[in-house]
Amino acid sequence: MVQSDAELRHHTVVVVDVLRATSTIIAALAAGAREVIPVDTVENAVKVAQRIGSDRALLCGERNSVRIEGFHLGNSPQEYTPEVVAGKTLILTTTNGTMALARTHAAGRVFCGSFLNAARLAEAIVGTSSETVTILCAGTHGRFSLDDVYAAGAIVSALLGKAGEATLLDGATAALHLFRTAADDMRGALAASAHGRTLIDLGFGSDLEYCARLDVEDAPVPVLDGSQIRPYIPGTDALLQR
Amino acid sequence: MVQSDAELRHHTVVVVDVLRATSTIIAALAAGAREVIPVDTVENAVKVAQRIGSDRALLCGERNSVRIEGFHLGNSPQEYTPEVVAGKTLILTTTNGTMALARTHAAGRVFCGSFLNAARLAEAIVGTSSETVTILCAGTHGRFSLDDVYAAGAIVSALLGKAGEATLLDGATAALHLFRTAADDMRGALAASAHGRTLIDLGFGSDLEYCARLDVEDAPVPVLDGSQIRPYIPGTDALLQR
Repeated sequence: MVQSDAELRHHTVVVVDVLRATSTIIAALAAGAREVIPVDTVENAVKVAQRIGSDRALLCGERNSVRIEGFHLGNSPQEYTPEVVAGKTLILTTTNGTMALARTHAAGRVFCGSFLNAARLAEAIVGTSSETVTILCAGTHGRFSLDDVYAAGAIVSALLGKAGEATLLDGATAALHLFRTAADDMRGALAASAHGRTLIDLGFGSDLEYCARLDVEDAPVPVLDGSQIRPYIPGTDALLQR
Repeated sequence: MVQSDAELRHHTVVVVDVLRATSTIIAALAAGAREVIPVDTVENAVKVAQRIGSDRALLCGERNSVRIEGFHLGNSPQEYTPEVVAGKTLILTTTNGTMALARTHAAGRVFCGSFLNAARLAEAIVGTSSETVTILCAGTHGRFSLDDVYAAGAIVSALLGKAGEATLLDGATAALHLFRTAADDMRGALAASAHGRTLIDLGFGSDLEYCARLDVEDAPVPVLDGSQIRPYIPGTDALLQR
């Protein structure tokens, strides 16, 4: 589902890195984080955090699924509790998710999606205007990653539910079929994916359970506004700085 | 499922362009064609045909699904009857399939696969040695194409049946799931794919029916031997010129 910059122009893009960056961003904003700033490298994360100041900034992220040395938080959504993140600016760098976000610079509007917020995301997209929606699966080290495709399918399913009808490209049709085959036991399906197996081996098995939940109550819809990710507020599209 | 050259080295690669290049190659060899020479451009096809001589060579192929002007045959497998192709050398150039074949130059062994020969292909692969198998879906103009993924799933299914067990990467797992959701009505599933719809619009609907048939009797297993594609004969691996 990779598209060129020209194709993404004026599209609504949904970035999906369900294990775990976009699930973590949703968890962080739900827990009251002020904003999430995605950055590409560890060095840049440290620079941005220094500029913002240690009273407000938390360094967050992983390399090879494990918390970066010296960082406050890793990439497990369950670490992002109100006690830790409320009111904070989170500087986040991850292996795949923040790279996918960087690829969206030409898009009209960029949301973060996962199972957690599929229905509310669909509501946000369909509530504004009818247009082309591209779901950008972060993948794993540039490879096709089944976990993200399942979540993309959940989002396609939610969009069809809200929009009534839509033209699906083959990738969206495939994602929808795959989601439907796995929906009854999404935790099991994620555990059978290559990325899921890696996370279980590293001791993050409970994150799969957390991330596999469809439509949790009051899940925010993260939207990229300039360099920052904040909860989307309906009616604010014209104000989004792209 | 795109892999780098280095990753393909020593792999068995199965090229799949089910609508229609690999189905056509299988049909051509089943009808007694001596060999198929895949080439990249119309100009090169004409040059190769001139070198071979008009008594033996037939120019075959399509651009945008339609027979190339001045060529003997298009890319519809149903044109490739014994009356037309028996004993001939077919010079074939297609939009997606021959490009995918060109990407395999680093591979250890290259077969052509489709629904027509899934079981016999699996037999050929498993009968020789246990190794890594990469299924290369040709796609459509560089895009994900659901028709090829269904056929890849049929091949994964056949390989699992022969090999007993195997480690599947996420792409192979996805293809297998998708094949299983569509297997009861593969003609209908192909007709719902983007490429299938295009072929129907161009009047090639009956090709979908032809190509959707799983395991037709005595379907050959085309193998790339140097620059030529010929039916694979078990036990000849050491002789294949790569």
